Amino acid sequence: MLKEITTSQSIVKYNGHHFIEEEDDIAVESALTIILDGEEFATMVCTPSELKELVVGFLASEGVIRVFQDIRTIQIDEEKGFVYVDLVNKQSFHKEFHSKRFIGSCCGKGRQFYFHNDLITAKTIMTKLTITPDQCKKLMKQLQESSAYFQQTGGVHNAALCTEDGIVITRTDIGRHNALDKLFGYCLIQRISLRDKIIAFSGRISSEVLLKAAKIGVGIILSKSAPTNLALDLAEDLGITAVGFIRGAGFNVYTHQDRIQG
Amino acid sequence: MLKEITTSQSIVKYNGHHFIEEEDDIAVESALTIILDGEEFATMVCTPSELKELVVGFLASEGVIRVFQDIRTIQIDEEKGFVYVDLVNKQSFHKEFHSKRFIGSCCGKGRQFYFHNDLITAKTIMTKLTITPDQCKKLMKQLQESSAYFQQTGGVHNAALCTEDGIVITRTDIGRHNALDKLFGYCLIQRISLRDKIIAFSGRISSEVLLKAAKIGVGIILSKSAPTNLALDLAEDLGITAVGFIRGAGFNVYTHQDRIQG
Repeated sequence: MLKEITTSQSIVKYNGHHFIEEEDDIAVESALTIILDGEEFATMVCTPSELKELVVGFLASEGVIRVFQDIRTIQIDEEKGFVYVDLVNKQSFHKEFHSKRFIGSCCGKGRQFYFHNDLITAKTIMTKLTITPDQCKKLMKQLQESSAYFQQTGGVHNAALCTEDGIVITRTDIGRHNALDKLFGYCLIQRISLRDKIIAFSGRISSEVLLKAAKIGVGIILSKSAPTNLALDLAEDLGITAVGFIRGAGFNVYTHQDRIQG
Repeated sequence: MLKEITTSQSIVKYNGHHFIEEEDDIAVESALTIILDGEEFATMVCTPSELKELVVGFLASEGVIRVFQDIRTIQIDEEKGFVYVDLVNKQSFHKEFHSKRFIGSCCGKGRQFYFHNDLITAKTIMTKLTITPDQCKKLMKQLQESSAYFQQTGGVHNAALCTEDGIVITRTDIGRHNALDKLFGYCLIQRISLRDKIIAFSGRISSEVLLKAAKIGVGIILSKSAPTNLALDLAEDLGITAVGFIRGAGFNVYTHQDRIQG
């Protein structure tokens, strides 16, 4: 698998004294265009692995589909970087709304920010799952150990679907959101139950990352990095426990602390 | 300035033994919607600083404007996160093309990937500027030292416009591309000459980052992190020197090595 998503390239290394020509492994980045019911829908750049999962997760995240069965056919042309998706119900999707801004004024707060498609797809999380501080640290450690590809190329993000006992699967991408969309697609295709699941993520918790977690439907997101205030507002609102800066012995719990116990 | 772009928030810190309630500085992330000639054009999330530069750089990067003078008026409603832009010439922009994929087959390669707007705006760089290995390292060191905000919140990217002698300005954003768009906007508003300039960047060199550098018009991009192969194909094609992994004594030169000499 590493063969497809990295490429060996001749580079010039400066070692502090001299320039030396060397072979180096570089992360592959490919363009992928989604043709939805015959029309160009979106183009993304991604790590070319698990493309079916990526597209299914992306379409679910955009509110185009709700379940994998909403897709009639999906054909992938890996060489050219095109994916052709036909929906069961072509009328189900209102293109003009999907990236319009929505300014919420519910809850008397008026501070949260969603796109229209986020309003449809981001779920409020009600899970009673709790994990211990040691489990938080163990899952983040496993995520980092599983990322051989990162160590090789230094240029990708990892997202893992976990239970409290360990990692179920890890997905990798040069794009933070793509790694999460691949997880989402996997869950939809495999019909994975998400009530008892956790996401461990290598990147920062921005609003988009937090919304992806809400769309996937997990109650806990773990990161070794920092969150933004908008992500935390959304986490508070959507019932998600956001844990950041998991490094060494400690970490920060930003929202819904009741799920971290022990 | 730090007051606006970070916010103090009550969090729960786990120190390895106990949970302790503390105040922490969190990076602010705000939604910004651009209304172009009366129509909703795009919504981004960003660090709410230098919004005028951000919008000018973004519109130039999207091919909507070429120079700052293409904008007749720009009004910023910081509180609500809206920017109203009226162009001098409303007909100059063809909305339907701006995010369509273009598969290049010029140069007999057919491998490069651009969006239509990139074809219009990304320039081939011809500068004769050269810098030494020590200057590469010095500029990256200055970038890291100048990023007090990053050290405070752990959640942003920095991009700096440099000459061979040092940093001219640094721009910060939670979004990698926004930091570069702020630089671009600054250069357009201030009419900065770019022939002798260098960009130092805290993040990875992806295709989008490389294309931003080409649009801004610099010949050298320095990063402490890794590139992707697509970014390097574009750098090769557009005449940009891409330098990565600037850490400690050494670094990697990926493309157009002739600009790093000494």
